[in-house]
Amino acid sequence: MANGYYEIRDVVYGFVRLDQQEWDIVNHEVFQRLRRVKQLSLTDMVYPGATHTRLEHSIGVMQMASDIFDSIIRKDQARSLLFEHYKLNSDGINRYRKIIRLAALLHDIGHAPFSHAGEGLMPIKDQESKERYDHEEYSIAIIKHYFRGLIEDHPLCANYPIQVEEVTALLGDSVKCSFLGIILLFKGIISGQLDADRADYLLRDSIHAGVSYGLYDKDRLVNCIDIGQIQETGDLVLAVQDGGWNIAESLVIARYQMFSQVYFHKTRRVYDHHISNAVKTILENCYPGFNGCYPLPTDLEHYILFDDWSIYGKLKDGLGGVHGEIVLKRQHYRKVYETDLIPTQQQGEELDRKVEELKSQGISEYFVDEAKTKWYKMDKDILISDEKTGFVRVLSGLSPIVKSMVDNPRKKRLYVKKH
Amino acid sequence: MANGYYEIRDVVYGFVRLDQQEWDIVNHEVFQRLRRVKQLSLTDMVYPGATHTRLEHSIGVMQMASDIFDSIIRKDQARSLLFEHYKLNSDGINRYRKIIRLAALLHDIGHAPFSHAGEGLMPIKDQESKERYDHEEYSIAIIKHYFRGLIEDHPLCANYPIQVEEVTALLGDSVKCSFLGIILLFKGIISGQLDADRADYLLRDSIHAGVSYGLYDKDRLVNCIDIGQIQETGDLVLAVQDGGWNIAESLVIARYQMFSQVYFHKTRRVYDHHISNAVKTILENCYPGFNGCYPLPTDLEHYILFDDWSIYGKLKDGLGGVHGEIVLKRQHYRKVYETDLIPTQQQGEELDRKVEELKSQGISEYFVDEAKTKWYKMDKDILISDEKTGFVRVLSGLSPIVKSMVDNPRKKRLYVKKH
Amino acid sequence: MANGYYEIRDVVYGFVRLDQQEWDIVNHEVFQRLRRVKQLSLTDMVYPGATHTRLEHSIGVMQMASDIFDSIIRKDQARSLLFEHYKLNSDGINRYRKIIRLAALLHDIGHAPFSHAGEGLMPIKDQESKERYDHEEYSIAIIKHYFRGLIEDHPLCANYPIQVEEVTALLGDSVKCSFLGIILLFKGIISGQLDADRADYLLRDSIHAGVSYGLYDKDRLVNCIDIGQIQETGDLVLAVQDGGWNIAESLVIARYQMFSQVYFHKTRRVYDHHISNAVKTILENCYPGFNGCYPLPTDLEHYILFDDWSIYGKLKDGLGGVHGEIVLKRQHYRKVYETDLIPTQQQGEELDRKVEELKSQGISEYFVDEAKTKWYKMDKDILISDEKTGFVRVLSGLSPIVKSMVDNPRKKRLYVKKH
Amino acid sequence: MANGYYEIRDVVYGFVRLDQQEWDIVNHEVFQRLRRVKQLSLTDMVYPGATHTRLEHSIGVMQMASDIFDSIIRKDQARSLLFEHYKLNSDGINRYRKIIRLAALLHDIGHAPFSHAGEGLMPIKDQESKERYDHEEYSIAIIKHYFRGLIEDHPLCANYPIQVEEVTALLGDSVKCSFLGIILLFKGIISGQLDADRADYLLRDSIHAGVSYGLYDKDRLVNCIDIGQIQETGDLVLAVQDGGWNIAESLVIARYQMFSQVYFHKTRRVYDHHISNAVKTILENCYPGFNGCYPLPTDLEHYILFDDWSIYGKLKDGLGGVHGEIVLKRQHYRKVYETDLIPTQQQGEELDRKVEELKSQGISEYFVDEAKTKWYKMDKDILISDEKTGFVRVLSGLSPIVKSMVDNPRKKRLYVKKH
Repeated sequence: MANGYYEIRDVVYGFVRLDQQEWDIVNHEVFQRLRRVKQLSLTDMVYPGATHTRLEHSIGVMQMASDIFDSIIRKDQARSLLFEHYKLNSDGINRYRKIIRLAALLHDIGHAPFSHAGEGLMPIKDQESKERYDHEEYSIAIIKHYFRGLIEDHPLCANYPIQVEEVTALLGDSVKCSFLGIILLFKGIISGQLDADRADYLLRDSIHAGVSYGLYDKDRLVNCIDIGQIQETGDLVLAVQDGGWNIAESLVIARYQMFSQVYFHKTRRVYDHHISNAVKTILENCYPGFNGCYPLPTDLEHYILFDDWSIYGKLKDGLGGVHGEIVLKRQHYRKVYETDLIPTQQQGEELDRKVEELKSQGISEYFVDEAKTKWYKMDKDILISDEKTGFVRVLSGLSPIVKSMVDNPRKKRLYVKKH
Repeated sequence: MANGYYEIRDVVYGFVRLDQQEWDIVNHEVFQRLRRVKQLSLTDMVYPGATHTRLEHSIGVMQMASDIFDSIIRKDQARSLLFEHYKLNSDGINRYRKIIRLAALLHDIGHAPFSHAGEGLMPIKDQESKERYDHEEYSIAIIKHYFRGLIEDHPLCANYPIQVEEVTALLGDSVKCSFLGIILLFKGIISGQLDADRADYLLRDSIHAGVSYGLYDKDRLVNCIDIGQIQETGDLVLAVQDGGWNIAESLVIARYQMFSQVYFHKTRRVYDHHISNAVKTILENCYPGFNGCYPLPTDLEHYILFDDWSIYGKLKDGLGGVHGEIVLKRQHYRKVYETDLIPTQQQGEELDRKVEELKSQGISEYFVDEAKTKWYKMDKDILISDEKTGFVRVLSGLSPIVKSMVDNPRKKRLYVKKH
Repeated sequence: MANGYYEIRDVVYGFVRLDQQEWDIVNHEVFQRLRRVKQLSLTDMVYPGATHTRLEHSIGVMQMASDIFDSIIRKDQARSLLFEHYKLNSDGINRYRKIIRLAALLHDIGHAPFSHAGEGLMPIKDQESKERYDHEEYSIAIIKHYFRGLIEDHPLCANYPIQVEEVTALLGDSVKCSFLGIILLFKGIISGQLDADRADYLLRDSIHAGVSYGLYDKDRLVNCIDIGQIQETGDLVLAVQDGGWNIAESLVIARYQMFSQVYFHKTRRVYDHHISNAVKTILENCYPGFNGCYPLPTDLEHYILFDDWSIYGKLKDGLGGVHGEIVLKRQHYRKVYETDLIPTQQQGEELDRKVEELKSQGISEYFVDEAKTKWYKMDKDILISDEKTGFVRVLSGLSPIVKSMVDNPRKKRLYVKKH
Repeated sequence: MANGYYEIRDVVYGFVRLDQQEWDIVNHEVFQRLRRVKQLSLTDMVYPGATHTRLEHSIGVMQMASDIFDSIIRKDQARSLLFEHYKLNSDGINRYRKIIRLAALLHDIGHAPFSHAGEGLMPIKDQESKERYDHEEYSIAIIKHYFRGLIEDHPLCANYPIQVEEVTALLGDSVKCSFLGIILLFKGIISGQLDADRADYLLRDSIHAGVSYGLYDKDRLVNCIDIGQIQETGDLVLAVQDGGWNIAESLVIARYQMFSQVYFHKTRRVYDHHISNAVKTILENCYPGFNGCYPLPTDLEHYILFDDWSIYGKLKDGLGGVHGEIVLKRQHYRKVYETDLIPTQQQGEELDRKVEELKSQGISEYFVDEAKTKWYKMDKDILISDEKTGFVRVLSGLSPIVKSMVDNPRKKRLYVKKH
C-alpha cells in the first residue's frame, strides 16, 4: 500500500483502483456474498462462458460511474455550470465523486440467488396489490444496516463526511437534503437509460459470453457525457454532446441486441423457469417458515445467507424437485412454438390453441413464457446537448432508429417437457 | 438441425461446431458435471472474472485439436508423408480426426471438484509409494464406463468404427493396435508441450481473467504445425515449420508468464490450501467411508457425484471447518515471506527461520507453500522442421529464451493467519 | 510451397491463404497498383490510423467471400438444394468457389486514386445524360484485358476451366451462360446488402481507424448465411437463417453507424472536396490530353499509371493548386453550418441564406457538401429463411430498426476557407 | 472547444486528448509532414496493413509518456520522494508533465522518408569516422528552429514557462539547468529500455500489421512504473514495482518477438535495401547539390521537403532506377540463404562461399544483409524496486529470460535478383 490504492484486474477496464474505504467494503463478508451470485443466472447453460458474478460487475460499475463523472468534470463548461448553479468547487466535486462510487459499488448488494430469476420469490409487500419486494429495496436495507459504519465513519472520509442516505438516495431512496438538485442531477449516472450499470453489463456480459452484440464504444460514450441545460427551465441535466449522439444511439442498440440474442434466448428463458421453481421447492422444503419466499428485508440476517452456493448444495442433495433434476441434467423443456418479438394476433391465437391441445391431452409439463422489456423509455428520453448553446434535444428526435423503438417486445414461447 | 451440425458460442473460437455424436456426449449428464467444476479453482478470489468451467474448456480443446489436425492435413507434404508411411487416405484421415476430437473433448472428464486443488485428496493407489490416483486415470475410467456406447455404437460412426481404447490411448492409456505409429504421432496433439489442452487454456484463462499474458497468436501456431521427420530414423513426428519457431517459443513464454502471474499468484495459491483443507473436512465429516479421500476409480458412481456445487452446499452449511469459513469470508492467510522463483540458499534458510519462530511462539495457523512446475521439458523438446528437407531440430537449439528455462521454479512462501 | 498454399497476414482474418493462381494474380503489377490506392482517401486526416489500401481490402474480400460460400456449402440442406436445382456436385462447387474468389479479389481493381473521391473525375460516358464511367466498368475492363491469361489458362484451373466472363458476371457484367441461375444466386456474395465487400470493409475500416462502430459479429454472420427459397416461385436465393436475423440487422446498423461517424465525418468530407479539386488541377496541368479527366476504359495503359503515389508526387511538386496546398498543410475549409442527417425545410433555407450572404460579400472560397447514401434498399430487402420450411421473409418485416430506415440521409454542410 | 481540449481517435488508446498548445503543434505544417512518413517503411510489402505513419505514432507516444508520468505521480510514495529530493510540488509536477509530453510528441520530427531506411542517406558528420547524422539530431534542430515559439510563448504556458532546451534535453541534447536531476530522472520515459516510444510502437505496429507479438499488457506496465532508489547512492531512478517485474520482462520479450517476426522479416529487410537505393538514385538525379545525401541539419528548409510522398512521385516518374522499378512491381530480390539469428561459423563461411560463387559467375545483382540489434542492454538494465524498501535490483537478476539475452542477433542473408 505504498501506492495509496489497491488494484483489481478487470476484463472491461484492465484495472480498477480502489482506495482503502472501497477495499474494506469489498472485503466485507456481506459484499463477498456477491461472489456467489452469478450475474446471468443459468445463462451459461447456453453461453458456457457466462459464469461471471455480481461481485465482478459491481466493482466494474463503480469504475464506470466515476469514469463518467470524471469525464463531465474534465469539461470546462460543465465545471462552470456546476459552480454557478450549486457552488460546487473541487472539494465538493471530490465528495460527490465518492458518493457516486459508493452507490455504484453497492447498487446490487441486495440481489437474491440467480439474480433476476429470484425476483419472483421475493416476499409480497402489499397483500392487496400482490406487489413483491424488489432487489433494490434489499440493497438499500443492506447498505443501511451493514455498511453505515464503513461509509460514515471511515477515516478516509474525514475531510468530507458522507451520510449513508446520500448514497442510497442515488439508488432510488427518497432523501431530504440541501443538495437535492445535485443528487437528482447525478442520479442519472446510477440509474437511467445511459447509466453506469447498463454501460458496464453490456460489455461484461458480451466478453464472458463471447458475443459482440453489447460491445459499444465505451471510451467514446464516456468522453461525450456532459451537463446540458433545459432551455425552458434552466435546469441542469445529464446529456450527451451532440457530436456523440450516435454513441448514445449505439448503446440503445447494443442493449436491444443483447436482449434479442442473449437475455431472451429461448434456452436461457426456460432455465429461469426451471431454477425459479427449483428454488421455490427448496424454500418450501428446507425453510418452512418463509412460505416459499425469501426472508423479508427486515430479516436481513437470514436473507444474506442465501446465495447460489447454498442453492447449489440443495440441488445436488436432490432437494430441488423435478426442476432441480432438470437443471442438473440439462434436460430443459423444449420450445415447440414461439411468436415474433411483437406477436401478431394470429400468433397469439396459435399459441393459445397449442396450449389447449396440451391440456386436452392431459399434459401439464409445459411452460408459457413471455419475454418483456422496454427497448427505450420514450418518456425518459436521452438528452443531447447542443455544442454551442448547451441546450438539450431528445435523442429520439435525432435518431430514426431510437424513434422506431416504440413497440416493446413481449415474445411468447411455449415449451414442453423433453421426451 | 437442417444444417447437420450444432454450434456453441465460444470466447476463443467464436463458435465451435459439433456433430450429433459430439452433441450427445456433451449432453450426457456425466459430461454436464464439468459445468460444475471450475477451471481454475478459486482463482476468482484474485481475478474475479475467472469463474469459467471445465465444460467450456473441454469443448474448446476439441476445437483446437481438430484445428491443429486440419492444419497438418491441409499441407501437401504432410498428407504425402501420412500416405507413404501409414497408407492413410482421406477416409482414414476422417477417422483419426474423429478419434482426436473425442479424446480432446473427454480428456478432463475425470477432474475432481476445484480441479487441481482436488488432486491431493485422490485416494492412494499404492500404499508403499503413497502415490495417489490422478485425474487422468479417472478420465480413462469414466470414458470406458459411461461413454463406450456413445463412442462405439453411435450411428454417425457407422462408416468408420472406433474403439473406445483408441480414444483413451491418446490420453496415456496403453494400447495395442495395428495403428500404433499413428496414435503415437497424434498423441502430441492431446498431450505434449504444444498440445491442444495448453493451447486452449492459456487463451481462455487470459480472456476470463482479463490478462494478456497467455494471448499468443493462435492462428499462426495452428498454421505452422506440421509433420516432420527424424533424420536418423525416418520416424514421423509432430513439428513446427521453421518459419514459425518463434510462435512455438511464444507459447512457451505465454505459459511461463501465466504461471508467474496467475497460477502462482500468492492469493490463489493460499486458496488452494484453504479449499483443499475445507474439502478434506467435508469428506471426513459427511462421507466417513472414504477416509478423507474421494471415491476410488472403481467406484465411479459415487465419484461423479462430487463437483463444486456439492462442496459449495456443504461450505454454506458450515461443514467446511475453519478453512471453509475462511473461503466464505475471504479471510485467507496472509503472505509474510517469499523467496525468488528459484530460491537462493539464504532465502530458504530465512524461511525456515521464520517458521521456527512461529512454532516457538506456539502459532500453528500458518502455511508453507512451494509452487512448482517445469518451465520446459528439455527431454521432450519441441521439434522444428526444416522448410526444405522436412528434418527436425530442437527448439531449445534455436531459441535462447527456451534454452534459458532449465532451472525450474520452486518458489516458497510462508502465509500466516490474518488478525 | 511444400504446403501447397501461400499465406498473407491480415488484421481481420488472421491469415488469408492463397493458392498459386491467386498468388500470381496478387503479384501482377496491375494488382500491385492497389497498394498505392488508399481505401479511404484522406480519411486519415481525421482518423490518423486509416491509411490502409485497396490491396489489403481486396485480399480480405476474397477471404470473406469464400468464407460465406463455405458456410453455405457446409449446410446439409443447402447442398441438397443446389444439387436438386442445378445438379451441382462437389466438383461444381469447387469451380464456383474459385469463380467467386477471383471476382472478389478483383472487384476493386479499377479504382482511381483516392478511391471514391476520384469518381467525379471519371470521363463522361454519355454526353447527353452526362453520366460518367464508374470504377466497376474499369474493373471489368482491366480484368478482361490484363488477367484473362491468369484466369483462363492457369495450370491450377486445368480441372475446371473458368472463363473470365464468368468472373466479371459476378461484378455486374451481363453474361450469357448455361449456369445463369447459379451466377445470379451467388452474385449476392459479391454485390448486395450482405456482400463480402461490405462485410469486409466495415471491419477493416474500424480496426485501422480505431473505432468500434463497424465491428459486427463476423463469425455469426458467416455461419448464418444459407440458401433459402421463395415460396411463390421456388427460386433459390441467398438468405440468413431466421435464428440469425439479428446479425443481419446488426450489419445494417454497423454500416449506418460507420457512415454517420466516419464516412460522413465533416473533415473527411471536405478533404474529398480538396483532393478532388487538386487532382483535377493536376490532370489539367500535367495531362492536357485528358480534359481534366482520367483516361478512358479503352485506354487502360494510361489509366493504370494513376495511383495515389503519382498524385502525391505532383502535390509535393506544388502542382495541385490551392487545394493541393490545403492538403499538404492541413488547412481545410471549416464547417460553419450543417443540417440534420435529413434536413428540415428550415435548415435547408438557413443554409441557402448563409450561402447568399457569402456571395454578397464576394467570398468564393466556400463549399456546400451534401452527404448522401441509402441506409437500406427496401426494394432489395435482405431475406430471412424459416428454420423449418426454408421459405424466406424480408428483414424489414422482422426488424423495427431496419424498417425505420426508409428516409435516406442527405446531410448538407457549408464550409468556408480558414483564416 | 467548450470542453477545453481536443481529441484524436487512436487505435491504441481509444482517444488522445490534446490541449490548445499541443493541437497547434500538431497542426503546424512541419509536424503534418510526419503524415507523409510511414512508420515502417515498406513493411506493408509483407504485412499489407502496416501503412501507418510517424504522425500517428508521435501522438501516441505523447499519450503513453504522460500515462507513465501520471502513474508515477499517482503513487503516494513517489510523490513524497519527488518532494523530498527536488521540492517538486503540484505546480512543478504539472510543468514537467508538459515538458515530457512535448518531448514525446516531437521526438520523431526529424525522421527522413521511409524512417530508418533513410538513415544510411544522412549526410556524413565527421569525415574521419564517416559517422553520419542521425534522425535525433534532425529532431532537435527542427524543434529549436520551428517550434520554439509554440513551446516558449504559447499562452497556455503562461503559468509555467518552458524553455525549448528543456524539451530537447529529454531527447539526448546536453543541457545546463538547475533541475538536471529531474531531467535525468524523467529522461527514461522518453528514451530507455522501457520508454514511451517503445511502449507505443510495439502495440501500434502489432495492431496495424495484424500480429500479436508486440501486444504486451499496457495497462499493467503503466501501473507498475514507479520511482525507486539506488541503495548505495540514494539517487532516484525510474523503476518497475517488484510485483510487476514480469510485465517489464514481457515488454522485452515483445520487442524480441517483433524483431524476429516483423522487423527482421526477410522481405521487409530487402525492401529497405531496394528503397534505400532507389532514394539514393533519386537524390543523385534530381538534387545534384546534395551528393546523394539528404540536406544537412543546417539546411532544414530543404530537409523538410523530403517525405515519402515526394519520393513516391519520383518513383512513379521512373526516376528511382532499377531499385525503384523493383519497388513498383514488387519484384524484390529473393532470399537464397540465411544464417541463424546468431550465425555459426559454418553458416558464415557457407554464406561467403555462395557470394564468391555469384561473383565468379559475374552476377552482381545480389545483396548481403545483416540484421542487427541488441535484444537487451545489460549495461542499462531495467530496475525493479522492492515493495517495502523502495531499493532497486536489476531485471536480469530476476528473469532468466532477460538474462539469456546476452548474445545479440546478427542474422545474415543473401538475396539474389528474381528471374
